[in-house]
Amino acid sequence: MNNYFDYAASTPVSQHILNAMKPWENEKFANASSAHQAGRASAQAIQRARELIADKIGALPSEIIFTSGASEANNLAIKGVAFKHLDGKGHIITSEIEHKCILNACAFLESIGFVVTYLAPDKNGRISPSSLAEEIRSDTILISIHHVNNELGTIQSIEEFGAIAFEHNIPFHTDAAQSFCKCDIDVDDMDIDMLSLSGHKIYGPKGIGALYVRDARDSELVPLIHGGGQEAGLRGGTSPTPLIVGLAAAVESYPTKSDPIEKQFLDVMTQFDCIRNGGVSVVPSTWSVTFHTDEEVTRFTSDYPWLISQGSACNALSNVASHVLSAIGMSEEVARRTYRISLPPYQLSES
Amino acid sequence: MNNYFDYAASTPVSQHILNAMKPWENEKFANASSAHQAGRASAQAIQRARELIADKIGALPSEIIFTSGASEANNLAIKGVAFKHLDGKGHIITSEIEHKCILNACAFLESIGFVVTYLAPDKNGRISPSSLAEEIRSDTILISIHHVNNELGTIQSIEEFGAIAFEHNIPFHTDAAQSFCKCDIDVDDMDIDMLSLSGHKIYGPKGIGALYVRDARDSELVPLIHGGGQEAGLRGGTSPTPLIVGLAAAVESYPTKSDPIEKQFLDVMTQFDCIRNGGVSVVPSTWSVTFHTDEEVTRFTSDYPWLISQGSACNALSNVASHVLSAIGMSEEVARRTYRISLPPYQLSES
Repeated sequence: MNNYFDYAASTPVSQHILNAMKPWENEKFANASSAHQAGRASAQAIQRARELIADKIGALPSEIIFTSGASEANNLAIKGVAFKHLDGKGHIITSEIEHKCILNACAFLESIGFVVTYLAPDKNGRISPSSLAEEIRSDTILISIHHVNNELGTIQSIEEFGAIAFEHNIPFHTDAAQSFCKCDIDVDDMDIDMLSLSGHKIYGPKGIGALYVRDARDSELVPLIHGGGQEAGLRGGTSPTPLIVGLAAAVESYPTKSDPIEKQFLDVMTQFDCIRNGGVSVVPSTWSVTFHTDEEVTRFTSDYPWLISQGSACNALSNVASHVLSAIGMSEEVARRTYRISLPPYQLSES
Repeated sequence: MNNYFDYAASTPVSQHILNAMKPWENEKFANASSAHQAGRASAQAIQRARELIADKIGALPSEIIFTSGASEANNLAIKGVAFKHLDGKGHIITSEIEHKCILNACAFLESIGFVVTYLAPDKNGRISPSSLAEEIRSDTILISIHHVNNELGTIQSIEEFGAIAFEHNIPFHTDAAQSFCKCDIDVDDMDIDMLSLSGHKIYGPKGIGALYVRDARDSELVPLIHGGGQEAGLRGGTSPTPLIVGLAAAVESYPTKSDPIEKQFLDVMTQFDCIRNGGVSVVPSTWSVTFHTDEEVTRFTSDYPWLISQGSACNALSNVASHVLSAIGMSEEVARRTYRISLPPYQLSES
């Protein structure tokens, strides 16, 4: 798919990663919970993957809870905290431009009595740390703000959010589906208590992700999926060894340089009269561009029949301006001239 | 692994199924929620899989909700119903010998005010329909009883449970992780309202399963994983196209004859002084056997160093008699002489 420019929606899995997964599909396929030697081999492979992924964000292996993806991880973080407070309820702070899975989980919690504050972004999609500090209440039980916005590519100041949350002794969760591997993350330096990540955004398989949970073994997080004690008791279900091994292989082989297609893309874009949204602090692989006129849109889409999105994949099948573009103050009319073009992602720097 | 006899814990994925999955990993990898043609191709592949799986149980394609596996499906069924009743709470009927994911989900619901009745099995692991009928109350909101027991192989009378539930207008859920494809299932004939199934128990990939939900589009089930509107709004998260295609391929290619190893296994077992648990109505691939003496156990395990389980995989890492063996009245001492040997499964009959 050489006209595919929707890498923020999903990425391909390389042959290298498929090769790493394959032995665990049909040679060494035992259930990692089985006590026999074949089960132990699966459990060991999972442990190696857990170590590698933990290391990438400065966490302990025991703090990585594998899930089916970032949506599950986000739901586990938010409801896992909220369900401890079903009696007294409480207050949650998030933003207007989170992924739909966060917003819909919060809407559900509001429907059963929780109170949620949605921080508004500025016109570049930045959430201001001072607005977070102002909204903290004595009954605030959770702060959840994403790291990189999925439509704009805007990088948020999560270390500042983390510091504010730490100061008030409130758990801080961040959805890092669009930043994990792209941006440097250290959960200690950034005071992150929970962090969601996804496999298929980083050239790993679909159907796997993880939630980092600080001190997971002592965590009182309520599981979404109760089960047979897997994942420190926080997430039941047979561990999908091939997917977990694939996720780790994707982390290990994540590119550190941009794809040559980025240069070609930049050459194309200079031909058009458009602006890039999201401000100055954006990941280089995600471009939200607004064309100035309908004619420019027509010229672009006919000359370059790329596979791109208006809004994110999860907003793609609705015909209105996405909640993100609305939140940064974009009118319906301007949103219709706005596209998300996303290039093969890579690691920005390594500290 | 030619000494592997733990197929009830997990099965291998054949090359045929991996081949079916592969194009969706790295050639046609677009997000099925994306509006462009590559996204639509993924969505169409998922729809074909949905049709095939629905057809296997007499359901409509729109009634198949893909999940990460049977544990998630079971949690979605039970909590999805319960969370509609958070205000008034309610009563749930299940059995003492469900999978741990059901029992632990129910224990959580008890901790927040729901009432759960656990039906006791007879010594063969059969739940009696009359015991179910006796326990129904005016505030019963859900009945959940599995189809085939994972440790004993005992087949339950789910059509009778379904009829009783239907008569009382109570939703009936069954965990079919150990019966799907092995036993004929028709959700209409059996009055099943929700049914959980798993990929990796039927030679499909790990990390995929489904919940059948009657009239899913009109269902008021509360999602476990809120998200971007996928799966009729009942389960968020990017659809894992390769896993879903693999699950359908596993259903399509499910064996209809026993593996030759079954004959060899039977020849071995006649040499030993042991009994088979679970009564007369059991699936042929799952054998719970109790050796009469410790000497027989020693002779068996040294002559045949098979990869087998004591209890299920989810109970494997604890050293006490499993909850299933305890529930059928087995002492710790007898349970220690009891093993689950599970052969390659196949379809029992096709009506």
